[in-house]
Amino acid sequence: MGVITFLTDYGLGDDFVGVCHGVIARIAPEARVIDLTHGIERHDVRGGALVLRRALPYVPAGVHLAVVDPGVGGERRAVAIRCADEDRVLVGPDNGLLIPAADAFGGAIEAVDIGRSPHRLEPVSATFHGRDLFAPVAAHLAAGAPFGAAGEPFSADDLTPLALPEPRIAEGAVIAHVLAVDRFGNATLDVEHAELAGTGLRLGRTVRVNGLPVHYAQRFVDVAPGEPLLYEDAYRTLALAVNRGSAAELLGLKRDDEIRLEPGE
Amino acid sequence: MGVITFLTDYGLGDDFVGVCHGVIARIAPEARVIDLTHGIERHDVRGGALVLRRALPYVPAGVHLAVVDPGVGGERRAVAIRCADEDRVLVGPDNGLLIPAADAFGGAIEAVDIGRSPHRLEPVSATFHGRDLFAPVAAHLAAGAPFGAAGEPFSADDLTPLALPEPRIAEGAVIAHVLAVDRFGNATLDVEHAELAGTGLRLGRTVRVNGLPVHYAQRFVDVAPGEPLLYEDAYRTLALAVNRGSAAELLGLKRDDEIRLEPGE
Amino acid sequence: MGVITFLTDYGLGDDFVGVCHGVIARIAPEARVIDLTHGIERHDVRGGALVLRRALPYVPAGVHLAVVDPGVGGERRAVAIRCADEDRVLVGPDNGLLIPAADAFGGAIEAVDIGRSPHRLEPVSATFHGRDLFAPVAAHLAAGAPFGAAGEPFSADDLTPLALPEPRIAEGAVIAHVLAVDRFGNATLDVEHAELAGTGLRLGRTVRVNGLPVHYAQRFVDVAPGEPLLYEDAYRTLALAVNRGSAAELLGLKRDDEIRLEPGE
Repeated sequence: MGVITFLTDYGLGDDFVGVCHGVIARIAPEARVIDLTHGIERHDVRGGALVLRRALPYVPAGVHLAVVDPGVGGERRAVAIRCADEDRVLVGPDNGLLIPAADAFGGAIEAVDIGRSPHRLEPVSATFHGRDLFAPVAAHLAAGAPFGAAGEPFSADDLTPLALPEPRIAEGAVIAHVLAVDRFGNATLDVEHAELAGTGLRLGRTVRVNGLPVHYAQRFVDVAPGEPLLYEDAYRTLALAVNRGSAAELLGLKRDDEIRLEPGE
Repeated sequence: MGVITFLTDYGLGDDFVGVCHGVIARIAPEARVIDLTHGIERHDVRGGALVLRRALPYVPAGVHLAVVDPGVGGERRAVAIRCADEDRVLVGPDNGLLIPAADAFGGAIEAVDIGRSPHRLEPVSATFHGRDLFAPVAAHLAAGAPFGAAGEPFSADDLTPLALPEPRIAEGAVIAHVLAVDRFGNATLDVEHAELAGTGLRLGRTVRVNGLPVHYAQRFVDVAPGEPLLYEDAYRTLALAVNRGSAAELLGLKRDDEIRLEPGE
Repeated sequence: MGVITFLTDYGLGDDFVGVCHGVIARIAPEARVIDLTHGIERHDVRGGALVLRRALPYVPAGVHLAVVDPGVGGERRAVAIRCADEDRVLVGPDNGLLIPAADAFGGAIEAVDIGRSPHRLEPVSATFHGRDLFAPVAAHLAAGAPFGAAGEPFSADDLTPLALPEPRIAEGAVIAHVLAVDRFGNATLDVEHAELAGTGLRLGRTVRVNGLPVHYAQRFVDVAPGEPLLYEDAYRTLALAVNRGSAAELLGLKRDDEIRLEPGE
């Protein structure tokens, strides 16, 4: 009677998501499926990985199925991963998509290659592993099948990592990066408020962002319309925004840009 | 084992809706969640209020969670409301969003301010009260928590009303208003067929709409392509449309416009 | 405790789908509803029919509700159909939408006209039969109501067929047609790989497509970016695509086009 959460870049315009729900319902009629989102940008593995990582703490422990898979049909491994904490299981392609989420739950302690899983639907198509491989494996695991029987065990150390920039402290400044830009032009950074301790960067004060003075505010309305702000978003990550505007546009930001944060005057 | 219905302006492109589902599933694993729509236009409180009001009579009584909340993080109250009829409970921001739905079920007879509800997820973020406040309160109520324990009671008379124009009869004409214009250019008015009794406006006859002769028809196909019609929509509200065209465009209509309806020749 | 699958062209921007879910939940609280997709192009009966047909083998047997209904409110019949295989039941308009799916399960062996079904919600609106007719009938059937009690029986031979081109073999060539073009410009044909036996068309070889040499490949990456390929899609149907491009554009394809497939050099 497990819970399966489901995240993809399939969109809802086609029957891909619905068919995966059907496959799951045939195998595990009692499992409850929670759609996290199917709106990840097509083939955006990193975007999917970050959304999965931030969402999982809010959803019940269970089997977490995620498919953003530009390499489908190629050489990349298909995997199931068991995390150290809460017995959470992740199922998806071995392209880094699952790694930040696994790390948030103590890291992967067990991994199986499910490419030739006994649970797969044969013949496995070249392009729709969500239906033929990932959903059936997730469903069998949610229905109580033993983790180790889902595929061939391999060392969790061999999982493909997700390439992410590393924030650092240098000469009194925090060097962060733009992790993602959302459709409102808000730019998520790779630093959390807690990491600012001792840097002189303080809520309610001015921060220099690549030289430009920006208010470190609690809410958008704490700055005038059109003005930029640094703030802690709903997932406790620092982000840059513009009240009723676009930080990406005003500050010329795009993914992976380096952001130098220094105390203002 | 309650039912929770869920309506927002979050869209499905992000994980906001999925995370709220997750929060509900952790608190009330047995509750069934029915998504009414998450396609309300961003920050369109009135649009959300009207959709909620028309949808609720068709869904099971339960906890009706609705979040269209431009004032999130500001001074507006967060509330749960109990209706006179069917023991329906509404949860959302106190900005008028819930009021037409409450009125459709006998009006609010009990209200609590849930801003500091014991059910909330702490720390409550400044921007995502759907996850931190509204969904947890709705889930606890659906799981059987007593209504009064969800927050601080206050008089239902103090709920913020929804500002809506009032239709009236003047000199033999019905003065109505455009409540909403949908993506096909159909304009919903704030009058129902039953209210036309005694006005001389009759189905199958010509009606003058701001002076222009328009057929009061049962179906789009009752007028030629490109011709306007007045009709009763699927929710029994009068609306203006153009067969295979846009009434908004042809008649130059937008929300809140005053529409004078008079019997034609 | 049946399963209901649900496919429409309603989209998710409005409350139409949510209201149908509500109607079902009131009648059959125990039924599980699986949304196949609500992204069928508006009024595209054939597109909906083909998606329904390819999806059903992957979902549990049950009541399969489908609404793509340009003739709503007009003369077209509303029907429930019982299939020969797996006791599958289809509910929707009698405009061909359900026929390919019925044929995939042994054909229709019983049909009822549900236009005046005792299960309908009165008054039935002129435009929203999904809510007033199809969803209530599907829900009662899923809850165990006898098939024959849902409406007036009529001969399944009188069901409206779906007009589809017929592929054929002529002078050593396969004459196929474009069934559908998806948003990536991939063109699905009306032939399956198995039907190519004896034609000289072979996987891994060159095929002439309306004279143009095209590789019959297993995967997109088997041809260079910008190059066309013939391939078997995830539903085992032949399709034309361009690696990282649009077959519709490169080959000038649109729905119903005749495609002549011949062995290449």
